[in-house]
Amino acid sequence: MADAPPLQIGLAGFGNVGAGVYKNLVRNRALLKQRTGRDIVVRRIAVRDPAKPRAHALPPDIVTTRLDDLVEDPEIDIVVELIGGTDRALDLVREAIKRDKTVVTGNKALLAEHGLELFALAEAHRTPIYFEAAVAGGIPIIKTVQESLIGNNIQSIHGIINGTSNYILTRMTEAGLSYGEALDEAQQLGYAEADPALDVNGWDAAHKAIILASLSYGCWVKTSDIFVEGIERITGADILFANQLGYVIKLLGVIRLLPGTGSIEVRVQPSLVPRDHILASVKGVYNAILIHGDVVGETLFYGPGAGQDPTSSSVIADIADAAMWEVQAGERNGGFVTHGLYGNPLPVDESVSKYYLRLQVRDEPGVLAQIARTLGDHGIGILSVIQPEEHEEESAPIVLTLHFAAFGVVRAAVGEIASLECVRALPVLMRVESFTA
Amino acid sequence: MADAPPLQIGLAGFGNVGAGVYKNLVRNRALLKQRTGRDIVVRRIAVRDPAKPRAHALPPDIVTTRLDDLVEDPEIDIVVELIGGTDRALDLVREAIKRDKTVVTGNKALLAEHGLELFALAEAHRTPIYFEAAVAGGIPIIKTVQESLIGNNIQSIHGIINGTSNYILTRMTEAGLSYGEALDEAQQLGYAEADPALDVNGWDAAHKAIILASLSYGCWVKTSDIFVEGIERITGADILFANQLGYVIKLLGVIRLLPGTGSIEVRVQPSLVPRDHILASVKGVYNAILIHGDVVGETLFYGPGAGQDPTSSSVIADIADAAMWEVQAGERNGGFVTHGLYGNPLPVDESVSKYYLRLQVRDEPGVLAQIARTLGDHGIGILSVIQPEEHEEESAPIVLTLHFAAFGVVRAAVGEIASLECVRALPVLMRVESFTA
Repeated sequence: MADAPPLQIGLAGFGNVGAGVYKNLVRNRALLKQRTGRDIVVRRIAVRDPAKPRAHALPPDIVTTRLDDLVEDPEIDIVVELIGGTDRALDLVREAIKRDKTVVTGNKALLAEHGLELFALAEAHRTPIYFEAAVAGGIPIIKTVQESLIGNNIQSIHGIINGTSNYILTRMTEAGLSYGEALDEAQQLGYAEADPALDVNGWDAAHKAIILASLSYGCWVKTSDIFVEGIERITGADILFANQLGYVIKLLGVIRLLPGTGSIEVRVQPSLVPRDHILASVKGVYNAILIHGDVVGETLFYGPGAGQDPTSSSVIADIADAAMWEVQAGERNGGFVTHGLYGNPLPVDESVSKYYLRLQVRDEPGVLAQIARTLGDHGIGILSVIQPEEHEEESAPIVLTLHFAAFGVVRAAVGEIASLECVRALPVLMRVESFTA
Repeated sequence: MADAPPLQIGLAGFGNVGAGVYKNLVRNRALLKQRTGRDIVVRRIAVRDPAKPRAHALPPDIVTTRLDDLVEDPEIDIVVELIGGTDRALDLVREAIKRDKTVVTGNKALLAEHGLELFALAEAHRTPIYFEAAVAGGIPIIKTVQESLIGNNIQSIHGIINGTSNYILTRMTEAGLSYGEALDEAQQLGYAEADPALDVNGWDAAHKAIILASLSYGCWVKTSDIFVEGIERITGADILFANQLGYVIKLLGVIRLLPGTGSIEVRVQPSLVPRDHILASVKGVYNAILIHGDVVGETLFYGPGAGQDPTSSSVIADIADAAMWEVQAGERNGGFVTHGLYGNPLPVDESVSKYYLRLQVRDEPGVLAQIARTLGDHGIGILSVIQPEEHEEESAPIVLTLHFAAFGVVRAAVGEIASLECVRALPVLMRVESFTA
């Protein structure tokens, strides 16, 4: 292998992650050559605006503004797509595959929205797409699901897969900050974008959940198939009540194969996690993914879910994989296990769990009876009730935990409760996770 | 790939793990064929005594008592070595490599003691050895270090890599059991062997640490190079004092590259872990490995460290890797990164940390002064002292935590302290881990 030619990279994008990949490829070049047997060289970097001020300087002699320069250059073996978005990135990846170039991408939105098309194209061209960086930053969860757990039917995945949300919830829990204060802090520290919508509304996590679900079950889960809820409505009161009940609140991506039905449950929701569960100890911007497999049992993978260097680590691992095996072997499937359809998305209304329900009600006799009756009419059992003695004049919180029930039934009941005259604010409904496989 | 011939396995050993591999290969055969594109078939099983009663029945038509039948059969692609020990297993693996067969093994003692020879032989024959199951059961830590973190200089690894010890320490901590009671319980539950020596004396963890260190730094660490201490001397008092100081006690395998020196620290010792550190939440027979890489930062991998099914999951992942890539590509290095020597083992006496020291002393004036003077004479700073008011007649415990110091210096000081007339029992010395990379 000492005589193998250098592996030539065409890098699209030189933002936070792109610059990190370049920096770390240069820094650890000798190490990577020792380990892979090949010299890995960035041949071309495409950026939209070379004049833009940057934290890491662009190497001027290899810069271009044309993405086509990457795919048209026959010397480029691998196109590394780190421009983000789903327009120019989609064109670039399509073109690269059509020219039989290996693709490495960290673009979760691109894969979640266009994965079906791109992997089919890659399969037809026998050209792999690598995407370790698309889910959970530095955590090697894609390789784990694709390769290390290959002998397993995946029974369930529970993931803390959005670092911004986890940072906000951690600070609300540990420092007693309000949602707004914690979000401000996350933005000041650079953990949240100027527009944090995709992070806090659950969709960043949802894109990752779609990729993990599709990978685990060999069918493509559509964005329209899944239920997504963010953390925007969580208050300090919810954090305190959850704590009183023995839980912490986490934004979880949950993927689960329902035994015997072939139905796959995929959802992102704020959820109550038992305080002594290992996922409860995942704090700040860290991510963690808990996987149950029918052979391995329970495993967990923890690490930085974002950031320049951690994400580079995953991109570089993909490049090294390409350097060592596929280019040399000359044959690989599209990088996504498309063989066989193992299940169908479960409508979220059929998904079953326990629940946390917080209501703000008028402080008068008979209120709890009305609420309990509504729940009873829908066949929903009450597990516990907290009604604090101290509260504001005329308005009091009531927190209930509810027994296992289908989400649709609970939503209907909560809808009715919300319309009761005694209920003074929009109810807050969360899952209480039981972590059964 | 649909027309690829079946991959034929020669399975050596049908004990707990061997039977699990057979059972799960049969159970998930269709799934594995979908995912790898190849049918994976066990062609021959070699056992010492076919008549022995077994939990999982041997398939009689493919059984042999000759290990040679596996290596002599030209139809067998992969020899899976699960007989354990370092005698017959060594001969089998050597022979298999010489005949250019791929080897899959879960034998940590074999690799820790003969890895240098075996990987050199494998390299010469361009035949891979896979060994995911040799470290941490179902946790895919070998692939993670070899592939996912390939772009990283590994700065440190801290692992809970012996489930039996972790079970015993967990039960001592959570249920207040004595060491003996917890060990009995572990044996009754099948978590500890009838002879638990290798588990509780630290050597099972040490074999795994040797493999991880060698893999991380590309040089071979010898058993004589490392320092190993077990949990046999930990008492309930240590658990309580550690708790009072804000720590839990864990048996840690620690591997660390000392910046700027090229020295590698490798040791297995009971260590104090801060109560809110993620490793403190790893309980019972679970294992976890915390890795610091210069690019990725901090990552952790958690799961079942032993057991029939989890270990099978890793063996089957290795078999699937062989099925998909190497057999087809026809070329691979020996499975161990031998390129380059990144460092040298650090003598344990030079390794630096904070410490916990528990002494049993005569209850008389001036004792603490004598101890403090001895420590001071060696230049060792005292961080805290606990001297409980209640204690037995004439004999009192003193617990000290000591500032960062070289282990050799601390050992010398503690040796002097042990010989003081006022000290009535062998001192208990543990590391307080700081988890710096």
